[in-house]
Amino acid sequence: MNRELRVLVMSGKPAIVYAPLRHALSSGGKRLRALLVLLASKAVGGNDAVALPAAVAVECLHNFTLIHDDVMDRSPVRRGRPTVHAKWNDAVAVLAGDQLMALGYESLLGGEGRRVQAGKGKPRAGAARILSVYTRAYRHVCEGQGYDLEFEGRRAVTMREYRRMIDLKTARVIAAAAEIGALAGGGSPEEVRALRGYGERLGLAFQIRDDVLDVTGVQKEFGKKIGGDIARGKKTYLLVKAMETARGRDAALLRRVAMGRGARLVGQVRSVYERTGAVDAAAREIGKLTRTAKSGLRSFPGSAGKAILLDFADRLADRTA
Amino acid sequence: MNRELRVLVMSGKPAIVYAPLRHALSSGGKRLRALLVLLASKAVGGNDAVALPAAVAVECLHNFTLIHDDVMDRSPVRRGRPTVHAKWNDAVAVLAGDQLMALGYESLLGGEGRRVQAGKGKPRAGAARILSVYTRAYRHVCEGQGYDLEFEGRRAVTMREYRRMIDLKTARVIAAAAEIGALAGGGSPEEVRALRGYGERLGLAFQIRDDVLDVTGVQKEFGKKIGGDIARGKKTYLLVKAMETARGRDAALLRRVAMGRGARLVGQVRSVYERTGAVDAAAREIGKLTRTAKSGLRSFPGSAGKAILLDFADRLADRTA
Repeated sequence: MNRELRVLVMSGKPAIVYAPLRHALSSGGKRLRALLVLLASKAVGGNDAVALPAAVAVECLHNFTLIHDDVMDRSPVRRGRPTVHAKWNDAVAVLAGDQLMALGYESLLGGEGRRVQAGKGKPRAGAARILSVYTRAYRHVCEGQGYDLEFEGRRAVTMREYRRMIDLKTARVIAAAAEIGALAGGGSPEEVRALRGYGERLGLAFQIRDDVLDVTGVQKEFGKKIGGDIARGKKTYLLVKAMETARGRDAALLRRVAMGRGARLVGQVRSVYERTGAVDAAAREIGKLTRTAKSGLRSFPGSAGKAILLDFADRLADRTA
Repeated sequence: MNRELRVLVMSGKPAIVYAPLRHALSSGGKRLRALLVLLASKAVGGNDAVALPAAVAVECLHNFTLIHDDVMDRSPVRRGRPTVHAKWNDAVAVLAGDQLMALGYESLLGGEGRRVQAGKGKPRAGAARILSVYTRAYRHVCEGQGYDLEFEGRRAVTMREYRRMIDLKTARVIAAAAEIGALAGGGSPEEVRALRGYGERLGLAFQIRDDVLDVTGVQKEFGKKIGGDIARGKKTYLLVKAMETARGRDAALLRRVAMGRGARLVGQVRSVYERTGAVDAAAREIGKLTRTAKSGLRSFPGSAGKAILLDFADRLADRTA
């Protein structure tokens, strides 16, 4: 996987576009969306070589969103290293993100092209479906980021609005990864649907966990600046939840956070999140989503692939990085 | 065409993404790339309804590049109106551009989906080809913009380097428009190749004309700020050509322009461009490219479609807007 990503950006020109992409793609990262493509493919009996270009494409989509989101959010650090716009500049980061999306589509289309040229039959209907799923995820992630930006300027958002935002911004890409893997692996319509549902729930849990780690994480492990969401007035699960019940001085503090004036209050905000039970509520929500994700796979026959997916869900729920 | 583009962004949410897109897409523009898709399709006997989603997709790609390039170039005005980043902000412009590219792919994929659902047969091999051509153009336009950015920081570039840059940044999208139209219209491989070649030459001529209009144009007609390329030290045809022959004080002036310090010297720079013969050379180059573009169509049987393409080439060569 990492080798494929390296090859994708190894020798491209001009350097002004490809050097930042090499920086962004060589900084590790969990590659969990790509991994999920491969695991979903395996769970339906597919083979890795066929699913690999799709996994690369999904990883391109994800890294594209990171590069552009970091520009929009003015985030200086990602995976413990300077972000592209911080190391180069905004123009370079915008362009590098754009280019990565083009490479993502090329990986999808080229993978199919190679399969056909290798004499393995005509273009599959599945390939068109994969492109549609990929493109819909691309649109949704932009719409989700739009809500996220819009919410930054608002005093409060409801839990329902928060949920729609993270669904679009995070969960749908992870759902698409699982769905694309199932399609690439030749899964049945039921398998494809089950894996998509699994990915969706996993994705929601993943984002809530991310919101929690912004407050309780350890920067060296997490790779992002702790308290970054607080500094920017992001409407996270914790903020939305805590605002539902906080009163008096706690409520006043949270209003300051919501208006983006909480950068120096991270420690106090954390106490309020704990005192109001928002941190516990997040943990319960993550647990519930993880259980639902796993139970969606119960119709799958027992297999090594399925066992890994179940374990994968648990690991994500407890992650610290 | 304009109606289709309106529909595409009419009712989308969130407003933070779609309002800027409505602004960008309702500001007119020549729509010449979309027109070229339709004309090329017609020239090979295709019908407009089938080519329309592809035409919309090409227009999305083009407007995506405008929105993002305006961020990178800090351009305040486009088509006589404020650019997206000027009217909103950089984050919104980055996101709106991203979203537009997703909508472009959806138009391509959805158009094919509608055709298949309407019982007009299985997915065509042509559809996969169109996606590949579209995606390659997307990659190339990013690479071309990369060279353009890189050149801004350089003291000089050769005519050869300039040519590669505008080929990637401008000509390949216009070539792709012609090729995609030919594919959508069901053209033969020879027709597709001829139309691509026609588009490529047209595109080179188009960009050189754009470079000239930056100096000789009338802002109200041109829609962009006159002298914008000079202010930013863009390596245009005129600058590259004039630097080949200018001596003494003229050469010193051009070196200032190349280093991005010519914002207040537009009048003088224009005189140097004229005195060194660069403006005349550009006109000759545009004439030559236009003739080559047209002669590439000589194997086409005479038809209304062909006559329009020949006329189209001449109009572009003389455009003032």
